[in-house]
Amino acid sequence: MARIDINCDMGESFGNWTMGRDDEVMPYITSANVAGGYHGGDPHVMRETVRLAAEHDVGVGVHPGLPDKMGFGRRKMDATPEEVRDYVTYQLGALRAFCDQYGVTFQHVKPHGAMYSMLSESPEHARAVMEGILDVDEDLIYLATDMNIYEVAQEYDDLDAVFEGYVDLEYNPDRSLIVEQEKQARDPDLVADRLVSIATDGTVEAANGEVIEVPADSICIHGDTPNVVEILETVHSRMDEHGIELAPLHEIV
Amino acid sequence: MARIDINCDMGESFGNWTMGRDDEVMPYITSANVAGGYHGGDPHVMRETVRLAAEHDVGVGVHPGLPDKMGFGRRKMDATPEEVRDYVTYQLGALRAFCDQYGVTFQHVKPHGAMYSMLSESPEHARAVMEGILDVDEDLIYLATDMNIYEVAQEYDDLDAVFEGYVDLEYNPDRSLIVEQEKQARDPDLVADRLVSIATDGTVEAANGEVIEVPADSICIHGDTPNVVEILETVHSRMDEHGIELAPLHEIV
Amino acid sequence: MARIDINCDMGESFGNWTMGRDDEVMPYITSANVAGGYHGGDPHVMRETVRLAAEHDVGVGVHPGLPDKMGFGRRKMDATPEEVRDYVTYQLGALRAFCDQYGVTFQHVKPHGAMYSMLSESPEHARAVMEGILDVDEDLIYLATDMNIYEVAQEYDDLDAVFEGYVDLEYNPDRSLIVEQEKQARDPDLVADRLVSIATDGTVEAANGEVIEVPADSICIHGDTPNVVEILETVHSRMDEHGIELAPLHEIV
Amino acid sequence: MARIDINCDMGESFGNWTMGRDDEVMPYITSANVAGGYHGGDPHVMRETVRLAAEHDVGVGVHPGLPDKMGFGRRKMDATPEEVRDYVTYQLGALRAFCDQYGVTFQHVKPHGAMYSMLSESPEHARAVMEGILDVDEDLIYLATDMNIYEVAQEYDDLDAVFEGYVDLEYNPDRSLIVEQEKQARDPDLVADRLVSIATDGTVEAANGEVIEVPADSICIHGDTPNVVEILETVHSRMDEHGIELAPLHEIV
Repeated sequence: MARIDINCDMGESFGNWTMGRDDEVMPYITSANVAGGYHGGDPHVMRETVRLAAEHDVGVGVHPGLPDKMGFGRRKMDATPEEVRDYVTYQLGALRAFCDQYGVTFQHVKPHGAMYSMLSESPEHARAVMEGILDVDEDLIYLATDMNIYEVAQEYDDLDAVFEGYVDLEYNPDRSLIVEQEKQARDPDLVADRLVSIATDGTVEAANGEVIEVPADSICIHGDTPNVVEILETVHSRMDEHGIELAPLHEIV
Repeated sequence: MARIDINCDMGESFGNWTMGRDDEVMPYITSANVAGGYHGGDPHVMRETVRLAAEHDVGVGVHPGLPDKMGFGRRKMDATPEEVRDYVTYQLGALRAFCDQYGVTFQHVKPHGAMYSMLSESPEHARAVMEGILDVDEDLIYLATDMNIYEVAQEYDDLDAVFEGYVDLEYNPDRSLIVEQEKQARDPDLVADRLVSIATDGTVEAANGEVIEVPADSICIHGDTPNVVEILETVHSRMDEHGIELAPLHEIV
Repeated sequence: MARIDINCDMGESFGNWTMGRDDEVMPYITSANVAGGYHGGDPHVMRETVRLAAEHDVGVGVHPGLPDKMGFGRRKMDATPEEVRDYVTYQLGALRAFCDQYGVTFQHVKPHGAMYSMLSESPEHARAVMEGILDVDEDLIYLATDMNIYEVAQEYDDLDAVFEGYVDLEYNPDRSLIVEQEKQARDPDLVADRLVSIATDGTVEAANGEVIEVPADSICIHGDTPNVVEILETVHSRMDEHGIELAPLHEIV
Repeated sequence: MARIDINCDMGESFGNWTMGRDDEVMPYITSANVAGGYHGGDPHVMRETVRLAAEHDVGVGVHPGLPDKMGFGRRKMDATPEEVRDYVTYQLGALRAFCDQYGVTFQHVKPHGAMYSMLSESPEHARAVMEGILDVDEDLIYLATDMNIYEVAQEYDDLDAVFEGYVDLEYNPDRSLIVEQEKQARDPDLVADRLVSIATDGTVEAANGEVIEVPADSICIHGDTPNVVEILETVHSRMDEHGIELAPLHEIV
């Protein structure tokens, strides 16, 4: 029986500023990537988000970002591997404390935005971060957004890594993603088809019609897609029809 | 045989700005209160400070501050008990991750500056923080700077608390401290006398000559006293003479 | 002929986080209080807001806040009069540069949130800020949110001050405001009635039915009231009916 | 008669953290590049630095940095030309307000660290910043650290630009600088010789002995060179011997 995790970025509000619809999305996902207070989030938001995840029995991971709130962690910066590792360790620890507060298992790490890009482009940075994770907690799972990073993670016997696929964006044939400027609504049926295809065959149709391999055990859903709740409902019922089971990352690895 | 801990605030540098002489002081203390990145410190400074503490077998605790770097966490602010608790949890978790990285036991919590004052003045704030600490890790020790806070800590059976005394400042008869504007050098012998008096009798002479009770199991040393290293050397040799044993907080409670 | 200014807080978005509906509200107001980058706003948001104000010929002022983005500048802090003055000078200058960029007259100063409360409660803080404003630019107008501050401003011959009234909140008989927890829609007709009453008689009906004096030359509208645009449309047509002229602050003093 | 300006970065302290020896250096220089609160400085530090410059009749300019306090503005980041321009405008305006407070002429702009590098490498970024400066105040002088930037500045008829030379570091033959890891003391006579050579001939000897052209009207002195005061005293007396006159930037252009 096919099993898959659905992950979503969460807890990206900050102070008086709200982002995303965490309350509405949380019931439909199995893993939450919670911002660690650098690109988004703050201690109050983090605690509330972990509390909400606990309520819905959702696995919690940290979504660490670069120290660039003004740029929402989306601008690469000339930080050394050690600096990036320390940023991850800091945010990871902070979030883990809130998980302890609610008795939630702290499950995974998924770098955000430009930090992810930096790790993807520089194996040296990726290794520094992964070694830092292993130093802190060997049970953590690395949620890998692309193959560059996934392959670096394979170098570490002790590090569990899961590759994630995307279904509310289109793939290029080379498995890169076509990211739109403005978030737009997506056809829920098309999204659900893609998820079923990845969960059962490990493949999906790229934008040009070519069928490509996406060997993913987790699906990333964008919480800021305008019709995200409708999409998630459709996805859930389609998964039921196909007998695909939802499971958080830590039950999959 | 008398035993006492010596604690000192550490890791208060930030980015390119240096504060304190952690390298020189660390060999003489048994517990380091490490800034958590809010009033001072950053992930790199925290990691380096924990590494240094590990090298000298010094117990590590978090020294959480208010989110006010420009004011070095020395300005009280109208934050709710919940907000302050979440700030402590965040910084506590962040520092604990660096302790895990170096295999160091994470030992205690000692709030900094205006956060300490807020907890001292508001038992509601103090309770929120202490309950937060217990939620995260019941083994943590609360290092109490004054009796107000120490007494709140006594309300919690599960919370170990240690009262700290001061020897490089003068006490008023009511056990409040006389804080100077400019840091000045102190007479090492006078400081050492006070430490011996607290460690052996639980008393010290106040500024007006009155002998007051200071039932402390830990002594706070200010790392920014100009002749701090000379003071610490004198203190150590005097302790040897009097057979007073140095021990980190977690061996004392 | 009665003349009145309508002011609204603007430019409180930050980085990727949006707040308010500046685009929709700007066409209806005459003075914009633009956040200076401390409690809200950033250089990009400030420039865009000034550009928008220029487009609609709206007078621009700075809305300086305390350095507390996480608390949106709503938490009082123990800052000295000099510190608060310097925060105002800094933000004032920053915003003025964007006004120069678009050839817009920089018109006024209206402190935000907890900074306003601190000035209201401490004449010493209010004087420091006002003297700082006069040192930088004697043509600036102080937009006074309550009588405490308005009276301090009267001490300075060189400082123009305007008192502002509120129409989308209810007054207590002592001219304090009843602030709700959750922003709720307001009856546009009731709001318009109040504005007409203040503009023509300098009075308004308090929550208990008592008629109180509100000698205001400017009306503050809250941009986050859910039906703010509807309110502003009603206000505008009611002003037309009563022959009340809209004018920015600098045409009124 | 040869005339030259001596400029130095100033006001890079932050909150409770001190950097540099502004008090000791200010008497010897003619132009101060004052940090704008992003990579270093804060409103209090900025005001104090401007006050000190006013006392010594030193020309004041802004030394704007990237929004990266943790990295002291030394890490390049993927910011757009518009973003960088807005950061400069913001900091420029903020500093100008403090100049107004003390009646000091606001004289020039010299980008700091990684922002300087970004402008040097990307003419598009340099142009955005220069056009922003011209939009705010056509009297400002651009202090150019290298030829790339100096040449972009020449594209603007309205923009005065001054090229600066270095004498407490060694040049490579291609006019790039050899920057050491650890700041070390410099031979005051050698530094003074270089300054005289630049001021009188527009040339200096590079590290390999080759004589290169450095057509500078301003000399940058590093305030963190351990023996900076001794260097400045030697430089001043050597300038007297050679009849080289000191003058702030705005008297030179």
